[in-house]
Formats: sequence, C-alpha cells, structure tokens
Amino acid sequence: MTQQTQPSEKALVPFVSVDNMMRLIHHVGIEQVLCDLAAYVEDDFKRWELFDKTPRVASHSDVGVIELMPTSDGEAYGFKYVNGHPKNTSEGLQTVTAFGLMADVYTGYPVLLTEMTILTALRTAATSAMVAKYLAPKGADTMAMIGNGAQSEFQSLAMKAICGITTMRLYDKDPAATAKCAANLAGTGLNVVTCSSPEQAIEGAQILTTCTADKQCATILSDNMVGSGVHINAIGGDCPGKTELAAGILSRSDVFVEFPPQTRIEGEIQQMPDDFPVTELWQVITGEKTGRSSAEQITLFDSVGFAIEDFSALRYIRDKIKGSDFFFELDMLADPDDPRDLFGMVQRAAK
Amino acid sequence: MTQQTQPSEKALVPFVSVDNMMRLIHHVGIEQVLCDLAAYVEDDFKRWELFDKTPRVASHSDVGVIELMPTSDGEAYGFKYVNGHPKNTSEGLQTVTAFGLMADVYTGYPVLLTEMTILTALRTAATSAMVAKYLAPKGADTMAMIGNGAQSEFQSLAMKAICGITTMRLYDKDPAATAKCAANLAGTGLNVVTCSSPEQAIEGAQILTTCTADKQCATILSDNMVGSGVHINAIGGDCPGKTELAAGILSRSDVFVEFPPQTRIEGEIQQMPDDFPVTELWQVITGEKTGRSSAEQITLFDSVGFAIEDFSALRYIRDKIKGSDFFFELDMLADPDDPRDLFGMVQRAAK
Repeated sequence: MTQQTQPSEKALVPFVSVDNMMRLIHHVGIEQVLCDLAAYVEDDFKRWELFDKTPRVASHSDVGVIELMPTSDGEAYGFKYVNGHPKNTSEGLQTVTAFGLMADVYTGYPVLLTEMTILTALRTAATSAMVAKYLAPKGADTMAMIGNGAQSEFQSLAMKAICGITTMRLYDKDPAATAKCAANLAGTGLNVVTCSSPEQAIEGAQILTTCTADKQCATILSDNMVGSGVHINAIGGDCPGKTELAAGILSRSDVFVEFPPQTRIEGEIQQMPDDFPVTELWQVITGEKTGRSSAEQITLFDSVGFAIEDFSALRYIRDKIKGSDFFFELDMLADPDDPRDLFGMVQRAAK
Repeated sequence: MTQQTQPSEKALVPFVSVDNMMRLIHHVGIEQVLCDLAAYVEDDFKRWELFDKTPRVASHSDVGVIELMPTSDGEAYGFKYVNGHPKNTSEGLQTVTAFGLMADVYTGYPVLLTEMTILTALRTAATSAMVAKYLAPKGADTMAMIGNGAQSEFQSLAMKAICGITTMRLYDKDPAATAKCAANLAGTGLNVVTCSSPEQAIEGAQILTTCTADKQCATILSDNMVGSGVHINAIGGDCPGKTELAAGILSRSDVFVEFPPQTRIEGEIQQMPDDFPVTELWQVITGEKTGRSSAEQITLFDSVGFAIEDFSALRYIRDKIKGSDFFFELDMLADPDDPRDLFGMVQRAAK
C-alpha cells in the first residue's frame, strides 16, 4: 500500500479564474473569441437533437433566482450555475454571476471549472450574432443597441465581427450608461452614434437589439416604431414577467427561438397564446426550415439563453486552455490509490 | 473610474480542497466531525418543512449517472454535484465523486465551494448514526457491517461516536475489503471481528448496516436472517434497480425514510407497492411521530441520501472554516467596480 496523500492527476480539475479568462480573451483577441464561440454554438445547434434538454432548475426567492442549467451530448456533460438578482446593481453587485463545469460522461469526473460571468456575456453576444447572420437582411450595416448595460458592448462587437455591422446607434434611458458604452466602444473601429430616444436610435438600423434589465413587462419598442425588413434581436425578455416588445410587433414578425418550452415561459412570446407559431433556430441552421424569406419580413430572435449555448462555451474553453497557462489545477476530487479505501487516504493524511 | 482589475472580496469564493478537508478533519478529530455533522443534520431535519425540496436532476448514461442535488432554506442555497459510476472501481477511479457549493439567497453569490467526496461519506455516516440514535434498541453495543467498501469505516466510527457501539462485526464477499476495513479500524477503540459470512456477521448485532455497491437487485440479507428487535441501516439501495434486502424483511419492519417521493424510486421500498407505509424521519425527530415503540420491533432506515443532508454538511463546513486556514479563495466571480461595466473591466485587464 503506497502512502501517497498527494492527489493524482485524475483528482485535479482545471480551473479558469476571472483573471485567467480575461488573460485568455486578450491573448486570443475579443473579436476572435466571439467568432470562435459563434462557431462552437453553431456546431452544437447543428447537432441539437443529440442533446439531453433538461429544463433549468430554478430556486426562486423574493429578490432573485438561482438556477442550474445542465445538458449533455452523451460524451460531455455541462452545467452552469447562474443567479439573477435585479436589485444587486443598486448594492454594487452584479445582477448576474455565473460559473460552469464540464464533466466526462464516461467517468463522471469533472474536467473543467470556469468563471462564466464574462463567458456568458460572450456566448450570449456570439449567439445573437450567429443568429443574425442567418436572419438579418442582406447588407445590414447599422444596429440600434437599446439598453447600454453590461451586455451592450459584447453585443456590439459580436455584430461587428460576425455580421459586418459598422455603425452602432446607442440608447439607454440612463445617459450615463450610453456614455459608458460609447467610451468602451471607442477605438474598436465601430462608428458609434449616441442617441437620446429609442426612435432616434432605430433610424436607419437594420438590426434592432433590445437588452434592458428591468424585471417587468415594459415596452421598449412599440408597434409603430418597427418598420418592415428589420431583424430584432430581443435579449432582455428572459424570465417570466419580463418582456420588452409590444405584442403587436410579435404578431407582425416571424419569431425564432432556441427551445420553445423555455421561451414560451421566459421570452417575449409569453405575451402570446400558447400556440403562437415559432421556428426553432436549430432547424434554420441545419437547413430544414427557412430563415429570412423576403426583404420585407420582420425577423425576431426571442433570445432567452439556453443550456446548450453554455455547453458550447464550456467546450470552447476546455479546448482552448489545453497546453496553455490560462488555468490552474484544483484539488477538488478525492482520489485514493485504492478506490475502496477513502478512509485510509484520510487517515494517512494525518501523518 | 478606478482602474482596479483585481477582484474585490465579494468576487472571491472560499474553496476547501481535498487536502484542506483532510487537514480540517484531523484538526477537529474525525469522531468529533461526525458528531458535529450529526447535530447539523438533526437541526435541519427539525426544520424540514422550511426547505425547498426539489427532486435531484439526473443525467443518465449507459455507464453511470451525474446528478445535481439542490436545496434551500430561504437564506442559504446549496447544491451537490455527484456522479455514480459503478464500473469506475475496476478502472482505478472512485464510484462516487462529489463537490458542493453554498450560496447566499439574498445576493445569489456563492459563499463556499468544497470537495464533497469525503464530506459525503462523513454526512452519510453521521446521518445513519443520528437516525440510529432514535431507532436502535436501547443498549445496542454491536453492529454488523455488511459491505466493507469506502463507506464502511465512516459508518463504523459514526455508530461508535454517536450511538456508543463498541463491537463491529465485518463481512464482505471480498475478504480483502474486510481486511482493509479491519486494518483501518485498528486503534480506533472498536472491538473489530472479521466474519466469513453475513450470517456470522449478524450474530449478536442489534444494528445491521448493509452497504454494498453492486447496481443490481441483490439479497444481502434474506428474510430468515433477521430476528426481532434489530435496527437495519440500509445504505446500499440508493438508486433505481439497486436493492439489498429481501422484500419479506420490509414487510416485517417499520420503515423510516428521508423523503418518500425519492425513496420510493431509489430505496429498498422500490420493491414494495406505491402505498407501502413509511414514516418520515423528520417527524420522528420533531416528536410528531413515534420511532421505536417496542423492543421486538424491527426498525429500518431505508437511506438513499437527500439534498438536505448535503446542505447541513455545507453549512457545517462554511461555519467551521471561518477564521481558519482550511481554505483558500478562488477568483470565480467577475465583480466590476461598476456592475454595468463588465466590458470595461475586461478591457482594463489588458493593460
């Protein structure tokens, strides 16, 4: 019997801290990361039917929600822990923080633990832009970014890198948020226009992105503001009781969703009848269904965020950190020499 | 705007590694840890009705299962990640590995990440012994430990520390497992007797603990082996298709369970009709229901392990590491100075 108490390699789980995530992003380049993530998400949408699509497991309180979002493709298993606490911002905390884990289905052993607050912002933006590539009108070069919070710069850069958007028209009810977003986008190559009303922001825009944070039914875009031919990328309506668009817009649009059972509860279409017609995005991406069919059509991505997108993001980080120094190893799994001798391992550690 | 890119205190999550868990156990003393854990579990069983009792979320494959077990008491939220891969042992890996997380319900921010492979073994044993304190016959001093795998020494020590058991009669179909268990228990003060059959092991024992690992319906104890007045602590029947006891024993016993909806699927009583009578343990502990009512009665704890026990264990570790050096802090949560300026935080890290 060996006297080893140091963990073996199998017991060590690669961990990507916030600091290392930022180092990785700067090493690769943020626009390249967004392009890479979009490709990983697109690949996983193409094999959508393979995935175990468990509903997210939510624990609600008066002030927020804590959710676990698991999924598996049969080889890897991933889950994200994410909270949503709108009141946190007023206390100097993030509304949303997240971390994620990937494990090997064959052994059940975790193979990656990573921060996912930044990674979620990146995957959400990458997914939006990947979807816009399929749905936005041809030649789109201008986006209205309504809601200039934590997600806005990521959305802007993803639409630039993946869809070729060159002009970003910013609006937020809080001018300080717009100023922050404009300052952050300075030097990115985007032509940034700050606007003082949603009406002004959407002028000449072919893509309208809404991403506001209030947990309430709001009307960020009213029916008469939306003309024909645009693509609406609706990010903010992402939980029960939270929507951003007038129902009239939904009636005039072709609505595309990630996973209908979840979107009908959490998305913009929670305002509509249960049989309101939607198209599943994965079927557009595999070519089974039509995306944009005419220049006049209004397309709408009713984005709520789905576990498979987090899985894609975890898969990307797992692949990207191999052989790098963007992680360190956590002694997280007990791994006795003799699997039946957990107690002996504990006992020998006393020496 | 400050240029800070180092994480603030709120972004740091205390992490207890396997190594630190073992150091903590030796610092406190393993029997004391088992007593402390039993008290924490007992406290949480007393406030059972407070808890959010979500079913565990399982992802099954041909070779095993990965589960998330969340719960909350309204102030703290906890979940455990645990795998179950019976074939792992033959590949030199643990059948079960686990880690857990506790978060603050008010902010949604994690407050503890910890290894839980060792901690689960401890909490399972502590729960068994806490339950035996209520159900075992008075003056019990001898336990039969059938199945001498990774859980056996923890069970033995918990029954010694919490119920005053002085003699441990060991049996496993693999004599090497029994030899390992006996060697590990040498010097603990227990009178250890190694046995060559289950029949021999149960001679004179008032508590019969079964903890075998095969994922199949097995009969570790047959009906004619179990006489009146004993307490059976059945640990091993803990997933669909896995039982250890003959149905006849269940019919003659008063069966006590953690959470009936889960035990009816996973426990020994999966062999019985859906309306087979059981008593919920928390009601025995609060005094609402009777535990042992006579010296002749056979009591049976059909243990499957429930999320609230993991919550108790997380709560104990969270409390115990305060002010100690049994943890280090993980930079796991992105925490920008301005919560809306996640992008700015990433951007400033480039410098």
